[in-house]
Amino acid sequence: MIMNVLGYAAHFSKDALAPYRFLRREPRIDDVVIEILYCGVCHSDLHQVRNDWGGSSYPMVPGHEIVGRVISVGQEVTRFKQGDHVGVGCMVDSCRHCGPCENGLEQYCEDLPTYTYNSVDRHDHMPTFGGYSEKIVVSEKFVLKIPKGLDLKGAAPLLCAGITTWSPLRHWRVGKGSRVAVIGLGGLGHMGLKLAKAMGAEVTLFTRSPGKAQDARRLGADNVVVSTDDRQMKAVKGRFELIIDTVPNVHDLNPYLPTLAIDGTLVLVGYLGDLEPMLNSAPLIMGRKSVAGSVIGGIAETQEMLDFCGEHGIVSDIEVIRIQEINAAYERMLKSDVKYRFVIDLESLRS
Amino acid sequence: MIMNVLGYAAHFSKDALAPYRFLRREPRIDDVVIEILYCGVCHSDLHQVRNDWGGSSYPMVPGHEIVGRVISVGQEVTRFKQGDHVGVGCMVDSCRHCGPCENGLEQYCEDLPTYTYNSVDRHDHMPTFGGYSEKIVVSEKFVLKIPKGLDLKGAAPLLCAGITTWSPLRHWRVGKGSRVAVIGLGGLGHMGLKLAKAMGAEVTLFTRSPGKAQDARRLGADNVVVSTDDRQMKAVKGRFELIIDTVPNVHDLNPYLPTLAIDGTLVLVGYLGDLEPMLNSAPLIMGRKSVAGSVIGGIAETQEMLDFCGEHGIVSDIEVIRIQEINAAYERMLKSDVKYRFVIDLESLRS
Repeated sequence: MIMNVLGYAAHFSKDALAPYRFLRREPRIDDVVIEILYCGVCHSDLHQVRNDWGGSSYPMVPGHEIVGRVISVGQEVTRFKQGDHVGVGCMVDSCRHCGPCENGLEQYCEDLPTYTYNSVDRHDHMPTFGGYSEKIVVSEKFVLKIPKGLDLKGAAPLLCAGITTWSPLRHWRVGKGSRVAVIGLGGLGHMGLKLAKAMGAEVTLFTRSPGKAQDARRLGADNVVVSTDDRQMKAVKGRFELIIDTVPNVHDLNPYLPTLAIDGTLVLVGYLGDLEPMLNSAPLIMGRKSVAGSVIGGIAETQEMLDFCGEHGIVSDIEVIRIQEINAAYERMLKSDVKYRFVIDLESLRS
Repeated sequence: MIMNVLGYAAHFSKDALAPYRFLRREPRIDDVVIEILYCGVCHSDLHQVRNDWGGSSYPMVPGHEIVGRVISVGQEVTRFKQGDHVGVGCMVDSCRHCGPCENGLEQYCEDLPTYTYNSVDRHDHMPTFGGYSEKIVVSEKFVLKIPKGLDLKGAAPLLCAGITTWSPLRHWRVGKGSRVAVIGLGGLGHMGLKLAKAMGAEVTLFTRSPGKAQDARRLGADNVVVSTDDRQMKAVKGRFELIIDTVPNVHDLNPYLPTLAIDGTLVLVGYLGDLEPMLNSAPLIMGRKSVAGSVIGGIAETQEMLDFCGEHGIVSDIEVIRIQEINAAYERMLKSDVKYRFVIDLESLRS
């Protein structure tokens, strides 16, 4: 049965989000129907609401850091049952048969994944709507288990901010004793510190704000380097095997390249666009260094990250809001005035 | 005994090379004294003669693709004896105890390697002079064996052009069935084609010149893609695990990034400088792709490459010149008018 669902939507790019009723599909045999309890607020929600990247379609119900409770399951669903706590991240489907999909890299699906919102379902061609809403219907394969004992509110941002930093940490084989740096202390950066530390790495935060040092250490940083201080930057020359750059805006990467060790990699996870000013190739060539990029992570890898967080008791540092406060939250997010993620309590939508 | 040696030198950056007599050190106990038979002419010789990179010191005797015959050895030398055919590449020494040196990565020595010319010996502080000369004195550790049966003239360019392309092919684990592309068909590019093909890869040449297709196929290319032809570029979208970019001048990398497969790497080996126009991060992030750099290779790796070339009968395609023709050869090299490397026959210096 098609469901009539209440959510919050933007109707055009300059619009404030407001209540909006829309239809969710009749559940298919492999679908899980989820009552949404919490949804994290990602910076990319705001980018897409405002059409910063182009290609936004409206009305848009954002939200891809979803934690909820299973209401019902289709007849072929085997991994979930009514009452389970589950998560949904940035993707709700993919082609499932290309090389990347077969290798658990659905985020790099050659036919592009179906995103949780601002996308079109590849079977019924209906628009997808995200987690700023009462319920969602998702194919079992793209539903994650939330480990018992993990705080549900704090777990929501793991579905995007968590996996976005976890995936490069795992892909570039960070482990005990690895020297890792994170650029920027926001939603992604604070998860990068927590996860890298729990993996056993020696963790450094690069920041322009000396005032963030104390909080960074609480979150897992062994060292804090103020990136505008030449002396501090020189002191970490040749140090890092991996740098995760979480900064969402254009910025100069050249000062960070000398801080990479031989064979080190700087991986961009926050900024899509031209690398201005120009990268200089000399530090890359004279140390076999790389500049790379990475986006979210695959479904199996997301479950692995959630299980790891369950074992280590890791959740995001959050500030819970009511959905009626979402527009004000966006304004504060633009000023980086959040420690470190807003999470919407969807109970506010039902009350 | 200190040796008085004849070579060809530039005395300042605008100078033509001309005969020049200079001193080689009295051999130390670990030294090998080598009569130089052949020396390849690398584009970087010209860059350094003309001080294109700054830091050139004069008089400068260039040449770092050296093949010769052992005249005598110091008392502690164990791996070489009089009459052996040997090679010397871009480095003649390094600190020998930093992390990279201990891992066979002397090219990334934290204290910088001692280069074969335009450098200063780290023990006696004398300037180093290269292979455009009669003889050279080199510590055993930095002397390579030339496998029996390999044409000595054609082997000379292996010491720089060969190892510069071999090292990234090995580091990024190219083997049977790998999909590799090479950008540019010059001294480095033609070695890249030969080596990748002999490793079992499917090899593609990117070139702006359709006229190079026939020669590229003879050298080992399975495919040739004209990089200015949009249709041809689209046809190889997502194809390559590794692209070796041998172009020595600034050029736009952005058109090549979509041709990388997921997790693919474009490695720069020919151009030091700003990456103009700016790289765009989106193709890196949306496919976990990397832009990296690499310089020559370590000593053990260079021997491995020479042994591989011995087994597979691989040498460089060369044009032999007399040393008296070196200035004209530089002019032709500037016009890419060489297939694919000039090699000086040092017999011309003695006659």
